Amino acid sequence: MDALARTEKALQAAVTRAEANGCPPRLAAAVRHAVFPRGARIRPRLCLAVANACGEDNPALAEAAGASLELLHCASLVHDDLPCFDDASVRRGKPSVHKAFGEPLAVLAGDAMIVMAFQTLAREFVAAPDRLAPVMLIVSRAVGMPTGIVAGQAWECEPDCVLEDYHRQKTGALFVAATLAGAAATGADLAPWQRLGDLIGASYQVADDIRDLVADAEELGKPVGQDALLGRPSAVAQLGLAGAIQRLEQLVREAVESIPDCPGAGELRALVLSEAKRLRPKKLAAQVAA
Amino acid sequence: MDALARTEKALQAAVTRAEANGCPPRLAAAVRHAVFPRGARIRPRLCLAVANACGEDNPALAEAAGASLELLHCASLVHDDLPCFDDASVRRGKPSVHKAFGEPLAVLAGDAMIVMAFQTLAREFVAAPDRLAPVMLIVSRAVGMPTGIVAGQAWECEPDCVLEDYHRQKTGALFVAATLAGAAATGADLAPWQRLGDLIGASYQVADDIRDLVADAEELGKPVGQDALLGRPSAVAQLGLAGAIQRLEQLVREAVESIPDCPGAGELRALVLSEAKRLRPKKLAAQVAA
Repeated sequence: MDALARTEKALQAAVTRAEANGCPPRLAAAVRHAVFPRGARIRPRLCLAVANACGEDNPALAEAAGASLELLHCASLVHDDLPCFDDASVRRGKPSVHKAFGEPLAVLAGDAMIVMAFQTLAREFVAAPDRLAPVMLIVSRAVGMPTGIVAGQAWECEPDCVLEDYHRQKTGALFVAATLAGAAATGADLAPWQRLGDLIGASYQVADDIRDLVADAEELGKPVGQDALLGRPSAVAQLGLAGAIQRLEQLVREAVESIPDCPGAGELRALVLSEAKRLRPKKLAAQVAA
Repeated sequence: MDALARTEKALQAAVTRAEANGCPPRLAAAVRHAVFPRGARIRPRLCLAVANACGEDNPALAEAAGASLELLHCASLVHDDLPCFDDASVRRGKPSVHKAFGEPLAVLAGDAMIVMAFQTLAREFVAAPDRLAPVMLIVSRAVGMPTGIVAGQAWECEPDCVLEDYHRQKTGALFVAATLAGAAATGADLAPWQRLGDLIGASYQVADDIRDLVADAEELGKPVGQDALLGRPSAVAQLGLAGAIQRLEQLVREAVESIPDCPGAGELRALVLSEAKRLRPKKLAAQVAA
C-alpha cells in the first residue's frame, strides 16, 4: 500500500470509530465533511516517508502519527474558515464546514478533531508506550502554545507581528512535526530531520502566498486574493512576486539537499520535488515553460 | 499540600509554560483569563481524591491528569460561551473570554487549552509510560466523539435528543473521566470507580439545572434562567422543581454509597457531600433550614 492509501485507511478508521453509536449525526457528518474527500495529505505523506527512511518496525505507528497531524491540520482549516476569521465559504472546492453545517457545529467539529488526533495516537502507541510521550510532545508543540499553529493564527489578533514568526508557527510548525514525528514513531534520532521540516514548512507558506495572488479560485479550491483583501502578512507583500518565487526555489533546493543519506532518501527527495511542482500555480508554470 | 493547592500548582505550571517566549501576548492573556482565578476545580479534586484512595506512588501523575481535565473543562466553557452558542457575556463573575478578548481569541484559546491538556499528560507521564495511553483514552473518550462533552454540546444542534444522553455526554462524561483517570494514574483497577463518576456527573447536571432556575446571578457568576430562555433540555423542565430536587438528593446518596471501602474512602465521601451542599442554591438551603 502506498503512503496515500495508508493515510486514508488510518483516517477512515479514526473517523469511523468517532461516528459510533451515540454520536450526534450532524456532528459526525461535519467531521466527515472536514476530513474527506482528501486534500494533498502532504503532512502525513511526509511523516510516512521519514519513518520509512528511518526504518520502520511497526508501520501502524507512523500511520497514526500522520493521521493525527492531518486531523489537526483539518481542524485548523475548519476554525480558520469561521466567520470571525476568514469567513471563507469554500474549502477544497466545496462549502466550508460552517457554510454547510452552521457555525456551532464548525466550532465543535474542530474541537472534536483535535481530541481525535491525540486519541488516535493513544490507540496505536499502546504497542510502543515509550514512544507515545515523545510523539505527543512533538505534535502538541506544533499545534498549541507558545509557538504552534494556534499561536500562529493568534498573531492575526495582535497589533504587530514578525512575518517569519507568523509563518513558522502557522504553517511551518506542522511540517517540522511531520518529519520529527515520522522519526520518533520509529524510535530514531530526531536531529537529522528538524531542518528538512523547517525548510518544507517555509517553502509551503511562500508557495501559498504566491498562489493566493496568482492562481485562480478553481485551481486553489478557495477564493484568491484573500491576503491582500484582509491585509494579512504575506511573502508576496514583503518581497514582491518575483522575489517570492526566487525565495521558494531556494527553499526547495535547500530542503532536498538537507535530506541525509539513508535507504529512503531518493523517495523523500522525489516527494519534496513533486510537491514543489504541484504547488506552482498553472499560470506561472505555463510562463516558465513558454 | 491539599488537593486544591496541588491543582492550582499544576495548572499554573501548564499555563506558565504555554506563555513562554514566542507566544502571542493576547492569546496568553486569554488563556490565563479562562483558567484563573479558579472555579470549584471539582473535577481535579475528585481525580486526586480517587488517586489517593487507590494509593499513589507518584502524586505528579494524578495532578497532571486533574489539570488536564480542568483545562478541557475550561476550554468547553470558553467555546460554549461563544456568540454562536450561549452568547454569554459573564462567566465566573467576570467577562467571558470572547467579551474580554474578542471571538477569534476565544476560539483559539479554547483550541490551545485542548492541546495543552494532552501536552500536560505527555510531560508528566514520561515517568510512567505504560499509564499514558490508558489515561489519554479515558480523557479523550470523555471529551470527544462519539459521546464526550463535545458530542454532548452538539446535541443542541440536533432536532431531537434524549435528555439523559445529552446530560451524560455534556456533563457526566468528564466526572466519569475524573474518577477513572485518578485510578488509572496510579495503575489501579478502574472497575470500582465508574459508577461513582456516573452518579456525581448526573447529580451535578441536575444541580446545575436547579441553580439555573432558583439561584441568583451573583451567586451563580453568570446569568440565570438561560435553559428556559434558550429552550434547552433540563431536569427542571422534565421533572418540575420539586422532582428535580428529589432526584438530586437520591443521586448524592447513591454516589456516597458507591464508594468502595478503602483508605481514602472517608475523605472522598466528605468531598461528595460538601460538593452537594455547595451546589444547593442559598435560597433553597434557607427554605430547608426554615
